[in-house]
Order: sequence, then structure tokens, then C-alpha cells
Amino acid sequence: MTEAGSDDRVAKLTQRFLATRLHSVELCRPLANEDYVPQPIADVSPPKWHLGHTSWFFEAVVLSAHASSHRPFHPQFGFLFNSYYESQGERVMRHKRGDLSRPTVAEILSYREHVNRAIVELISNAPSSEAVALIELGIEHEQQHQELLLTDIKYILAVNPLQPAYLASSNATVDVDSEFAHQAATGQWLSSDGGLVQIGAEIDFSFDNERPRHRTWLEPFALRASLVTQREYLEFIDDGGYKNANLWLSEGWDWANQNNHAPLYWLYSDGQWQQYTLQGVKPVAVDAPITHINFFEAAAFCQWAGWRLPREAEWESLASRFTWGRRWEWTQSAYAPYPGFVPSGGVVAEYNGKFMVNQMVLRGASFATPAGHSRATYRNFFHPQLRWQYTGLRPAKDIA
Amino acid sequence: MTEAGSDDRVAKLTQRFLATRLHSVELCRPLANEDYVPQPIADVSPPKWHLGHTSWFFEAVVLSAHASSHRPFHPQFGFLFNSYYESQGERVMRHKRGDLSRPTVAEILSYREHVNRAIVELISNAPSSEAVALIELGIEHEQQHQELLLTDIKYILAVNPLQPAYLASSNATVDVDSEFAHQAATGQWLSSDGGLVQIGAEIDFSFDNERPRHRTWLEPFALRASLVTQREYLEFIDDGGYKNANLWLSEGWDWANQNNHAPLYWLYSDGQWQQYTLQGVKPVAVDAPITHINFFEAAAFCQWAGWRLPREAEWESLASRFTWGRRWEWTQSAYAPYPGFVPSGGVVAEYNGKFMVNQMVLRGASFATPAGHSRATYRNFFHPQLRWQYTGLRPAKDIA
Amino acid sequence: MTEAGSDDRVAKLTQRFLATRLHSVELCRPLANEDYVPQPIADVSPPKWHLGHTSWFFEAVVLSAHASSHRPFHPQFGFLFNSYYESQGERVMRHKRGDLSRPTVAEILSYREHVNRAIVELISNAPSSEAVALIELGIEHEQQHQELLLTDIKYILAVNPLQPAYLASSNATVDVDSEFAHQAATGQWLSSDGGLVQIGAEIDFSFDNERPRHRTWLEPFALRASLVTQREYLEFIDDGGYKNANLWLSEGWDWANQNNHAPLYWLYSDGQWQQYTLQGVKPVAVDAPITHINFFEAAAFCQWAGWRLPREAEWESLASRFTWGRRWEWTQSAYAPYPGFVPSGGVVAEYNGKFMVNQMVLRGASFATPAGHSRATYRNFFHPQLRWQYTGLRPAKDIA
Amino acid sequence: MTEAGSDDRVAKLTQRFLATRLHSVELCRPLANEDYVPQPIADVSPPKWHLGHTSWFFEAVVLSAHASSHRPFHPQFGFLFNSYYESQGERVMRHKRGDLSRPTVAEILSYREHVNRAIVELISNAPSSEAVALIELGIEHEQQHQELLLTDIKYILAVNPLQPAYLASSNATVDVDSEFAHQAATGQWLSSDGGLVQIGAEIDFSFDNERPRHRTWLEPFALRASLVTQREYLEFIDDGGYKNANLWLSEGWDWANQNNHAPLYWLYSDGQWQQYTLQGVKPVAVDAPITHINFFEAAAFCQWAGWRLPREAEWESLASRFTWGRRWEWTQSAYAPYPGFVPSGGVVAEYNGKFMVNQMVLRGASFATPAGHSRATYRNFFHPQLRWQYTGLRPAKDIA
Repeated sequence: MTEAGSDDRVAKLTQRFLATRLHSVELCRPLANEDYVPQPIADVSPPKWHLGHTSWFFEAVVLSAHASSHRPFHPQFGFLFNSYYESQGERVMRHKRGDLSRPTVAEILSYREHVNRAIVELISNAPSSEAVALIELGIEHEQQHQELLLTDIKYILAVNPLQPAYLASSNATVDVDSEFAHQAATGQWLSSDGGLVQIGAEIDFSFDNERPRHRTWLEPFALRASLVTQREYLEFIDDGGYKNANLWLSEGWDWANQNNHAPLYWLYSDGQWQQYTLQGVKPVAVDAPITHINFFEAAAFCQWAGWRLPREAEWESLASRFTWGRRWEWTQSAYAPYPGFVPSGGVVAEYNGKFMVNQMVLRGASFATPAGHSRATYRNFFHPQLRWQYTGLRPAKDIA
Repeated sequence: MTEAGSDDRVAKLTQRFLATRLHSVELCRPLANEDYVPQPIADVSPPKWHLGHTSWFFEAVVLSAHASSHRPFHPQFGFLFNSYYESQGERVMRHKRGDLSRPTVAEILSYREHVNRAIVELISNAPSSEAVALIELGIEHEQQHQELLLTDIKYILAVNPLQPAYLASSNATVDVDSEFAHQAATGQWLSSDGGLVQIGAEIDFSFDNERPRHRTWLEPFALRASLVTQREYLEFIDDGGYKNANLWLSEGWDWANQNNHAPLYWLYSDGQWQQYTLQGVKPVAVDAPITHINFFEAAAFCQWAGWRLPREAEWESLASRFTWGRRWEWTQSAYAPYPGFVPSGGVVAEYNGKFMVNQMVLRGASFATPAGHSRATYRNFFHPQLRWQYTGLRPAKDIA
Repeated sequence: MTEAGSDDRVAKLTQRFLATRLHSVELCRPLANEDYVPQPIADVSPPKWHLGHTSWFFEAVVLSAHASSHRPFHPQFGFLFNSYYESQGERVMRHKRGDLSRPTVAEILSYREHVNRAIVELISNAPSSEAVALIELGIEHEQQHQELLLTDIKYILAVNPLQPAYLASSNATVDVDSEFAHQAATGQWLSSDGGLVQIGAEIDFSFDNERPRHRTWLEPFALRASLVTQREYLEFIDDGGYKNANLWLSEGWDWANQNNHAPLYWLYSDGQWQQYTLQGVKPVAVDAPITHINFFEAAAFCQWAGWRLPREAEWESLASRFTWGRRWEWTQSAYAPYPGFVPSGGVVAEYNGKFMVNQMVLRGASFATPAGHSRATYRNFFHPQLRWQYTGLRPAKDIA
Repeated sequence: MTEAGSDDRVAKLTQRFLATRLHSVELCRPLANEDYVPQPIADVSPPKWHLGHTSWFFEAVVLSAHASSHRPFHPQFGFLFNSYYESQGERVMRHKRGDLSRPTVAEILSYREHVNRAIVELISNAPSSEAVALIELGIEHEQQHQELLLTDIKYILAVNPLQPAYLASSNATVDVDSEFAHQAATGQWLSSDGGLVQIGAEIDFSFDNERPRHRTWLEPFALRASLVTQREYLEFIDDGGYKNANLWLSEGWDWANQNNHAPLYWLYSDGQWQQYTLQGVKPVAVDAPITHINFFEAAAFCQWAGWRLPREAEWESLASRFTWGRRWEWTQSAYAPYPGFVPSGGVVAEYNGKFMVNQMVLRGASFATPAGHSRATYRNFFHPQLRWQYTGLRPAKDIA
């Protein structure tokens, strides 16, 4: 075995692959079979679909090109589990995923086993470095879907009038007790003189959208060491923030007039604000960082508070000086290619670049991000009206 | 026991009640748990919902008024399983039923048991004749949903790209072999001089919309002894029937221009017409009666063939002279109250009358209608664009 | 001149034709050029379009077949002014008529002159009886559009925030003073024993949908001599009629929950109900017959009052005994072909029959109906949710 | 007169104000009254509305605060002609502007005169420098609407099946002959080493979104001296550019699958590409710069050609070295606040900043931009799917 390295490397990759694959299944363990099926809004996919899609990704991206003897599990699973890869042919329309009761959960678990065996065999068989890189990409891809699995499960359970809990208390897979844990209160601001800074990834694994590392110019600025809390956000609500057009972007104001005047999952009941959590409905934990707000809400809050959202380069250049990782942090940066951006080649050319319009960058990571999937150069992105992810915000301001 | 009669009547009602309740569950037996969840179009409810709703009906209509000690199974099941009864309060919006993974199938089966026990107890406890009548209504109501269960299951499986069969072959619950069985070919026409006829129900069980029995005047007419076959319908397709505006009602033509030019579940593939059946995809059985066509298609076919659709009074007055029961037969009669119509009272006042606009009457019964649920006075009704029921048509014509 | 008769008949037809044509233009006289353009909802066509369409109808139906030397005014006016005649080819989509600023009003008036000259010449030239019949149909057709012109103009002016009056006071063309004139108050009921009655048209001009004259059976019934007044309708509103689901058809209840709880053009302001009239905004005239209500509202009112809507045969069989003509009267009869119905042939085959689904019959005539266009056999029809016509209602009830 | 300066300055401002006001009216001179009314899509406002809105702007922004004796022309014109200023109260919904026939063109011209007189009087009356600045803003605002007037008129005439010309040949107001004039063919690329550049406005009149002037870092790049021509774009079409998913952003591909595969106003007819121009339909002028393409098309073209769109800082830093002004040039920069951006105060705080999401920056100016309204720091912006403006593109590329 030459290209992919020693037995040790085989063992490590195999272990990491299988652990990742298992983790997806573990995330679903608290579910009933019925919970794997619904798609209450287009953005929220059925858990069943995530389990199938992440397996299909290995088949389409790795096995089809690098495991010549691999037999696809089922001829129509490409149609069923392709998300958006035009080069991979026709597929179920995105908003129709919840119409599909088959394959069943059991069949999808068989599919996962089939793919797992094939990848393990491939790893043990001296794969090319290209194949190894794609397997690693598949692992990172599955980790991205693990975050979506949790947020989609939360949405599916929350829209149910019964509002069942996902987990009563933390287990080995998900530390639900920390979902709304307090954050250390600090009003400290961290300052930067700006100037010419470097951002972007250059080593180890990274997605194409984080590259190339490059220079950018920043004016002096400051970021707050701590995230905005639910207590602070309640003040915004109580001060009529949702009813003051001056605070909102025009499209945000339209949105605000068609939605509840509170973060997603909040409900005013019996004289107090409650919120649906993975442990069921609870009073709002005021000292936890605010979450489930969209870009419009984040921007309006900042306008109200006299602050602004960070630019992504500001965030990245200062990230070593504050704690991050509990909430995806909205930035004021539109998702765009870095100077010199070149999409990855082959099937995965469609991975990132084609979404670079009408979306905003979020930085950091969240409660739902799997361990080992975070880095300061990571660029997450969503449309500005979406808020079912664990989004939050860190104040920024210009300084003289 | 005085009001509801002897022990024998108790036993008979109990037996009929339990047999009906069991039949609903048996209809779902071939399903995976996941199949109980989706709602691919608003008209098609999740099987899970049907099982819950029919149980709720007994709770809301019978037990709440006639079993004072009854404890509802769950305080929110009224909200979850009320279909359209405004008097019974708020409810899940009809098109949102497929968003709900809970209660699970297992929980709904427990709910069914809970209701079953309560009704059996009520029956054994000398219920008033009013209570007995409502139990009988609940049984008839559940039979109506058994037909919907089968047609909704068919739709859910058919839209799945895997197009799984519901049953490979007939079992004790569903005779799938007869779904597209040949009908005896006959071009015979049955004539009537018309005149003053009586239609409507007067004895035994009937729904309020079948009453009162009343007189109506008919001009001379004839109905064909046999239904239109798939072979005949293929001729209409091959003759360009879907492309000839002259044959269509205006709203039908708009519909035709936005849909496939064939009945629901038909697919042209490999040089021949195939159709999805409860046994999976098969070549079109040309000698079976046509089905899964809507009112627009039925009317256009008749226009093409030089015939017309029957009026419901024509159909009913002649029903004893032909065989019916395999397909719901579209009529040209809009669904309207009979002269002297009085809705049933109480909770069930909303059962029928409030739908008497924009729908067309269908007469007869279908492959999916449970045994014992049919009679010549029965009035089924659907919006003219719908066709996921086992609809068909019987030609009519004026005669001198 | 043989076929169409003597010089006298020529003169009479010419005179009637030109008077009708002039009347359409006179109806628009109070308008600014800008008022001819908008189409605020799909059902309301621009006045400009009505003036063009009625001219096109003569070109397409009469001149193209019966005036061989006729040169169409413009090659694209068929595309612009065809309403729904599939046999006459492609056309501007119905809801796009308001996008068109050209042809200008002046150009359309030239078009009208061009057509007028051609028809007058045709009449003077011994037309066949078929041609004469089609000219008469064209005249009746234009009269139908005169009613729509007035109701569409009303709508266009009413949705304008300035709510300009159409006319300050009655003129030779429109007696606006009578729009909401009092009706003689009478609670008198007119009874009928029912039985076998004859309805439908048999002589003179009639539309195909009124034919053939035929027998139908009626149970004993009564109709009120007078229409429901605005005062009576106010009682329904004040009694919470719009908030009581029990009174409404299911589709009507959905409609009621999405619309103002009052007739079209009503506005509650300064502590009283006002309504937009052709003379501008005025306090509701309580002794005038109610108008601008749809079928759902009419049916809910009857349910509230303990009455019902008439059947069209009831209405027609008793029409000689009451005064009618100020409001189109909703019936409970769905628009359907009479027994033995045969559509007119040729181009005009599409005139009526293809709309016989999902619409309800209205009987009588209205304030906006041109003189000479009314008869007791006339069948008007609209979708049940529409109410921009001068609709009203006459109570009916069953009697022993 | 002290604050606003000498008599000469009064005369100059008055002259500029009146010339601008007259120009708007002159742009509409070729129209029929009917052409002022339609709104075929929400983005295209009726010419009548532009004439009213630009007058309202002077009333709401200047006269209400700085001319205490000013009497508004009509109490409801604020409701009718407010575009999007929340602080100025309720208004006609944007997509409903075409429903309004009143006020008539003549009334709006009177309104314009009323406002003109008031502003001229204010200018002559020693206005404060703040008032002068707002008058100048009103002039610039009206110039922005002059461009929209021309593009909206073009759209209104083009969607009309008669496709009338706006002008047969150039007049003093609009040089229609130059709309599709050839551009000098040049493949020359202009290079820049990038580095730290300054962009943004600092002197004279500018909008708030152009400020403050600030530093930004650029990597080495080149821009082409000439715009992409229609000939080049035809090659993209002929090469299947609209059918190749690889070239498109994901949202662009969805758009492309729902639209004609050509720029707006292009039609393939009689074996050649034609396009609607202000002079009517003509064969595509292949040597003119391409126009009426949206951001998605511009980006796909660049992907196909191996180039990319410029960043706005690249464009501005090099603008002195190429000719611009015939087409708005799409950039890859999302519309965002400059570092240190502060919106203008008062009523005009809503002028620009609240649109800074989901839109892309365009640089330069176009055929339709009024003389004197252009500068290299100008930031235009539109949603990426829009293309009824005179949009075009200039290729960019990275260089070593």
C-alpha cells in the first residue's frame, strides 16, 4: 500500500469513516419510524432522506469512479437521493421529499451498510490519493448533514401540536442540556486596528469556498467577546423592535409583517415567553445566547442596539481572541467567491460555488455542529430569511 | 335493556362495530410504518390520520354526549383528528396533515383500542336509540374512510418513484385481483320512458343527503348496461380527444392543458400504455372499466362518443336493471339538496349539506367500497377535477 | 331582397344595430381615457377591451362568413379581442388584458366604425336568414357586454383610492339615481302548488342555454314578492352572520374568513356603513334591495333567516306574479344543460355550453341590464364567489 | 439671500430644477394617454405614477419641512404616490399601481405645475442649505426616475402584441438611434496590479451609498476595454449556453429553465433573431453591446467564456481608463454598506440603505441615464433576476 500510506492511516481513515457513519444513525436513535418521513417546509428534509443522501454521496462521488466492481445498491436511489447535482441527472424535486414513504428506514439502513462495506473495502485496497480525498470530503459532507439532521428533527417535532421532546436529557450522542446553557456574561469588546489581514484556508482539509488564503483590508473595528443573549433580545422585543420599520431592511420589514414577532420556536403563553427545545417546551432561558433568528432579525437588532453585524474578514481575523462555537454568527457579508476562487473539480464542482448569490455568510459553529467539524476559516451560508439553524449574533462596531 | 333491544341486538351491533373497526386496521396491514405518514396532495390524507379521525368521530359524536364517564384518550386528539367540524373547534389545517409524525401508528392503535372498549361498553349498557343511531353513523362513516384509505394508500405508493405494490395478490381484506378484472362486454342500452319517478331513501340507514324520497320528472332516456372500458377510452386518446378543445368544458380544457393526456396512474412507456395498480405497474387491462378519470374527462369522452353523462335521477330510477358497483359513476348532476332536505341535527349537521356547491354527484359504488356500504340511493360527490377515486362512467342518451 | 324581408325589416335591424352600438360608446362617455385601461381583477375587463371585443365578435362571427369582401380592420385584433373562442385561435390571456395600452381608445372607436359600416352594408345587401340571426346574436352579445361595461367601470372606479363618481346624476344613458332607489316594502309571499311545470324558451330570440322548453316537477313552494333589502341584510351582519360557521357552506366559510364582513363596496366609516355607488360614496340606502353579494353570502343569509334560495324552475314558473329586474337573483340551481340541450352550431357553439360546471344560475335582470334584453327564461350564471355584478336575492320556502 | 448664495446660484438651481422637471414630461411626449396606465409586472411602474411620485417626493421631502405655507395639492396624493417610505405612512401596494386610472395624466400634470411653482418660490426665498441640498436630492431622484420612465415605457410597449415603436427616430429628448449603435470593436485588456486602492465619493453631490471614500485591497486583475457585444452573446446562445447547467448559478439555472433562452425582448422569427427596440422590432444589431440580461445570464456568459464579472472596486479603480456609460455593468459585488456607511438623515434615511440585501451592484450608466447623472462612484443595484434595465457586462479576469 503506497499512495494512501501505512496500515495506520488505513485504520485511522476506516475508524473515522465508520464513526461518522454511526453518528448519523445515533442522532436518529430517539426517533420513531414515523419521524423520519415528514418535510414540513422545503428547507427541512426528512431524516430518512439525510441518511440516504449521505450514502448516495459516497456512491456517486467515490465508489462510481474509484471502486470499479461496486454494484449500486438500487438503480433508482440516485434519483431518490441526489440533492442538487445536475451532473448526476434527474432527481426528486426538493420540496417533494416528504411525499416518499419508501424506501423505509430499514431499507435505508441496509443501504448504509452496503455503502459502508464498500468504502471500508476501498480504503483497505490502497486507494489513490484522489479517492482518499473524496472519502474525506464524504465524511465532511456527512458531518454537515448531521447538523441538518438535528435541526430538521427539531423542526419536525416542534411543528407537531404535541411538541414531543427529542431527548429528555443528554446522552452520549447529543448533549441536549447544553442547548440553552448560560454563557458567561461579558460586555467586553475586542479591538482591532484592521489594516491588511489574511483570511482563508491553506492547510489540511478545507472546502473550496474557504480558499485561497488571501489579503483583505479592514478599517479599525471591535467585536464583542460574548454573543447577544436571549435577555438582550427580549429587550429588543419589549421595546417594540418588531414594529419599528426604521430598524429593518426593506425585505426584512416585509418578512416581519408576515411572521410572529419573536424568534422561531418562541411562544407567548400564560404570561411568559416559552420556547420549544430539544427537551420540549420550556421557559426562555434568558442567559443563553439568542438563536433561531434570521439575518433580518439580526440586522434589526443591531440597528436597534446601535451596533452592526461583523464582516466575515473581521470575524476571522479576530477569532482567536474570543470563544465561539455555540451559535452560527450572522455576518453582513454576502456569500461570494474569494479572489482567485477555483471550484473543486469533477462531480463536486457543484458543491459550493453555484450557491454564491442571495445568501449571507455565517461564521463559527453551533451546538449542533459535530465535533471536529469546526475551524475559523469555515464559511456557512443561508438565505437571509431562514432561521431553523442555530443562528445567533455577535455585535460589531467601527472604532476610530 | 329496553331502548336498544334484546341481547341479540347488542351482540349484532357490537359485532358489526368491531368488524368494521378491525377492517380499517386490516386495510393497512400491508403497509410499512412510514407509509402511514405522507400527504402528497391535500386530498390524500395519511393512513395514520384516517385511523385516528375515525376514532375521534366516535369520541366526539357518540361518547362525549352518551358516555358520561368516558375520558378522552388525549386532550389534543380533537385538534389533531377533527376533519372539518367547525362546531368541534380548532383543528390542524387540512393540507398540513402530512407534516405530523406523531402520534405514531402504535399510539393511534392504542387510541383505537381505547375507543373500541368505550363503545363496546356503551352498547352493552342500554344506550338510547339516539346513541345507537350515532354509533351506526360512526360505522358508516368509518366505512367511507375505508374507501379513502385504500385510494389514498394507492396514491401514496404510486407517487413514489419505486412504485411498490400494495399487495401481490388478493387476501381476505382486499381482492386486488379484481381491481382491473374484465367486465362482460355488452353494448346493450336500457331504455326508460321517464315521466314522474321517485328517488331518494326512505327506510333503514341512509345519509341525510339521500332524503327525503321525492318525485322528479324525467324525459325519455337510455343508459348503457355496461361501463365504458379502458379500450374505449384508449380510442378517445388515440383519436386526439385530449387535444380537441371542442370536446371539453372550458374549465376542463384548462385542466387538460396542465396535465398528462391520460387517466391518473397511466404512463406511456416502451411503446405501450401501462398503469399503476395495487399490484404494481402493469400493462393497461383494456377490458376493464376505465377508472381514475375526473368529471372533465368523463364529459369530454361522452362529447366525443356522441353520448352524455346520466342525471342522478335517471341513474337511480333505472339502477335495478343494470349491474353496478365497480366504479363510481360520474353524473351530470351538481351536488345539491333534494327538495325538502333537512340536515341531521347536532354535531353531525355538518356531515353533508355544507358541501353542496361546486361538486358533482357520483352514483353506484366501487372496487374500494366496503361490503354492505352500497345502495342505489347513495350520493357520493367530488370536485370535478379530482380523480384519485375509482371513478368511471356509464353512457347515457336521450331517446325520442 | 327576399330572405331578410322588406325594406322595413332592413331599416329596423339597421336601426337596432346602430342604437346598440352607440349605447356601448355612450356608457363610456363619462370616462377619462385612462379609465378604459385597468383590469384590477381578472373578472373585470378594461372598458377598452369590451368595446373592441364586441366589434371583433361581429367580424369573427358575421363578417368573416357572410361578407366575403370584408377586410378585417387589423390582422392582430383577433388575437387581442377574442375572449374565449378556441376555434378562433390564440388570444391574449384573460388576466393580461390590463397590460395593454394599445390600441388606444381612439383606434378602437375607429375599429367600431369600420365594423359598423360593414354590418350596415351587409344588412342592406339581402343577407341570408342565417346572417341575420347572427347579427341579432351579435346585438344580444353586445347588450350582455353593456351590462359588464357598467359593472366593470364601477369596479375600476371603486378600487381607486379617490373613488370618483361615474356620474353625478342620471343622464339619457344611465339612470344612476335608481341604482339604490327604494323598493316598495312588502313581506307578501306568493305560493305555488308546484307539480309539472314547463320552463324554457320557445319563441323569438333566446340563447341556446334557455332551450328547449321542457317539463319539470316542483314540490309546493313560495317566493317572496319583494327582494331582500339592505336593511334586512344589515340585521344579518349585526347578528354576527359573517362569524357563524353554521350558516355557511364550507367553501363559503373559507371565503368569509378571507374577506370583509360586508357586501362588496361597503365600508364602515365614521360610525356608519357607507357604500360606493356610481354617484360616489354614500350612506347605505337601507330600503334599496341588497346587491353585490355572492352566492355564499346569499345562501348564508337565507340560512340565517330560515328561508332558502329559489330553484330556477320555481322562479321562472312564478315570475309573472312578481316584479323583477333590479337585481340578478341567485338561485340554488347549478348551471347545467336543460334536458335535450343542443348548443348552437358553428363559431357560436362555444357561446354557453362549455361553462356548465361550477357556476350557479341567476335569474331576472338588474339595474345594469340594457332595456329590451330581459325575459323570464333568461339564464345568467356566475361562479359562486363573484359579486361585482348587481346580484341580489329573493327568499323562497317550502310549503306543505 | 445668504445661505444659498447669490442670485446667480438661485438662477442656476431654478434652471436646473425646471429643466429636469420638463425632461420627465418630454420623455412621455410620444405616449398616448393610455400608455401612462399599465403595470405589466410589479417592477414596471406606470409612467403616470413616475410623474406623480417624483412630484410627491418634492412635497414630502422638501416642501413639507421647508415651505411652511405650502398647501399639498391633494390630501390623498401621499397615499397614491409614496413609493416605499414607511415614515411617510400608508401607500398603495406596489404591484397595484396599474389598477389606478385616476388621477388622470392631465391632473398629474397640474400636480407637477403646483409643485414646480412651490419649489421655484422656495428657491427664490433664501432657503437654508439643508433645503437646497434636499432640492438637489429631489433633482437627482427625478433623474433616476427618468431612466426608469424610459425602461418602463419600453416594457409596456414591448409586451403589447402590436409592439408599437416609442419613437421612429431620435428627437431632442431621446437619441433612439444610439440605443443599439455599434461599439468600437476592441479586445484590449486593461491591467491593474491591484493593491490598496481608494473608492467612494468625497466631493460634490453623491448618494449616501457611495460614501465614505475608503480603502480596499485588490489582487492583480484586468478588465476588458470594451463591453460584450450581441455577437459574442449569440455565440454563447448558439453554443448551448442556456442548456448547460455547469455554467449557471443554482438559482440562475432554475430561472433559465422557466424563461426564454435569450435576452429580454429577443424573439427568434423567420430564421433570425429579432429584438424589440424603442424604434420597434428590428434584427439584432450584432455589433452593439449586449443588453437586457440579468445577473444570472451575465455570470453564465462569463463562466462560458472563461472570464468573470468585475468586483465593484476593480471597476471603479480602473474606470478612468475605459469608456463607459452605454450599459449598466453587472458586477459580482453584492450591494452592501461601505465601511463607515451612515445613511442620510430625516425622511431620506430610507433612500438607499434598507435595500442592502439580495441585490447586486451595477456600475457605470446606460443609454437611458440622463445627461449629468453619471459618475464613476455611482452604485446602481438590482435583484439578480431582473433585466428590463439597460444592463450589460464587461469581462474581468485575474492576472498573475
